Amino acid sequence: MEIKVVHQIMEWNEDVSDEVKKKLTEKRVCLVNVMGSPGAGKTSLITSVIKQLSETLSIGVIEGDIAGAIDAEKMKALGVPVVQLNTDGACHIEAMSIQHILPDFDLDKLDVIFVENIGNLVCPAEFNIGEDIRIALLSIPEGDDKVEKYPLMFRTTDALVLNKYDMISYFDFDELRVTQNAQAINPDISIFNVSNKSGDGLNSFNAWLRSRIEEKINA
Amino acid sequence: MEIKVVHQIMEWNEDVSDEVKKKLTEKRVCLVNVMGSPGAGKTSLITSVIKQLSETLSIGVIEGDIAGAIDAEKMKALGVPVVQLNTDGACHIEAMSIQHILPDFDLDKLDVIFVENIGNLVCPAEFNIGEDIRIALLSIPEGDDKVEKYPLMFRTTDALVLNKYDMISYFDFDELRVTQNAQAINPDISIFNVSNKSGDGLNSFNAWLRSRIEEKINA
Repeated sequence: MEIKVVHQIMEWNEDVSDEVKKKLTEKRVCLVNVMGSPGAGKTSLITSVIKQLSETLSIGVIEGDIAGAIDAEKMKALGVPVVQLNTDGACHIEAMSIQHILPDFDLDKLDVIFVENIGNLVCPAEFNIGEDIRIALLSIPEGDDKVEKYPLMFRTTDALVLNKYDMISYFDFDELRVTQNAQAINPDISIFNVSNKSGDGLNSFNAWLRSRIEEKINA
Repeated sequence: MEIKVVHQIMEWNEDVSDEVKKKLTEKRVCLVNVMGSPGAGKTSLITSVIKQLSETLSIGVIEGDIAGAIDAEKMKALGVPVVQLNTDGACHIEAMSIQHILPDFDLDKLDVIFVENIGNLVCPAEFNIGEDIRIALLSIPEGDDKVEKYPLMFRTTDALVLNKYDMISYFDFDELRVTQNAQAINPDISIFNVSNKSGDGLNSFNAWLRSRIEEKINA
């Protein structure tokens, strides 16, 4: 019985995800779903991306958190429109929440909306939210076995950002193990080594991301 | 409707959790639920604990993972009985799984079973599994805002282990913020600074844990 119920909820989520995607395609807005563990650096990455891309792209942000508005305050300080989504205990964002929030944005004026998902390597990967692009962060301190342990996250993402890459000499992290495991289950994955602290790797990641966003909004 | 179904599943889980606890109390076995983000260091902590406590306590391990058996292999190498529980996508362990696994152990010969939960700061905290002791790990690289963002995990735990404490000088981590926020929502919480790499803090944590386990099995 339990499995059947979950299935129903997820089918409903898929329908709404399609509606969100259709609406955003009409408005030529690209939705980017940013996922990773608690503390992997999602907020810092989105902040860096906004600083580099906001000269040419008009950006909005949906900040997902179980509770609180710590990260939304950081985004607001950058001058971009931001909505805080509190899931009140739920471990992932569902498409219904995104659909509910979209009217809070002026979609005619936006090119891209970044969604910072709940810090979690499991459930967010199971729920499409109408996104065009998925980004999965894995930070070096988390360890090199995460692709094997949480395969769905890394199989369904467009990009893998190995974040806090400046810390690699302090941890016993086998980079080849991660990249080979990721490519084995997801041959088209783009992998970037990034340090938000030093800024290394951000140019390359942002160039890829800009190109993917422009593909969508100019289609 | 969605909320009602989740409630039903969780009530069922509570009933089974009570049954597991009753069974283990009869057998004088203590169950320890170890939780934390992916890469927080749960496996390393359990490994260190086994090495220190196995001289006087008879220990078993249930290794929870979405997929794979990487960590169970590590435990097996320590010579303790271990069962690998694969949740096949689920983001937490439920009491039903523990109940199903218990017959695989010789409970008359065990003092304590450690359960390594799925790497996740959200859902595991919502599901009791018959445990006597909860341990939540937070590693320094994850950042100092996690108690505010994932309050249930830190409100319901007996101990907070600040792991990878040897890395604190490399990260912008406000320790006081974490400890004050944790104590505000959980006044009885015990907090330990631990480095599994250097071994610092392990004696103090293990002394606390041994005393809590003995309280249970000698009750």
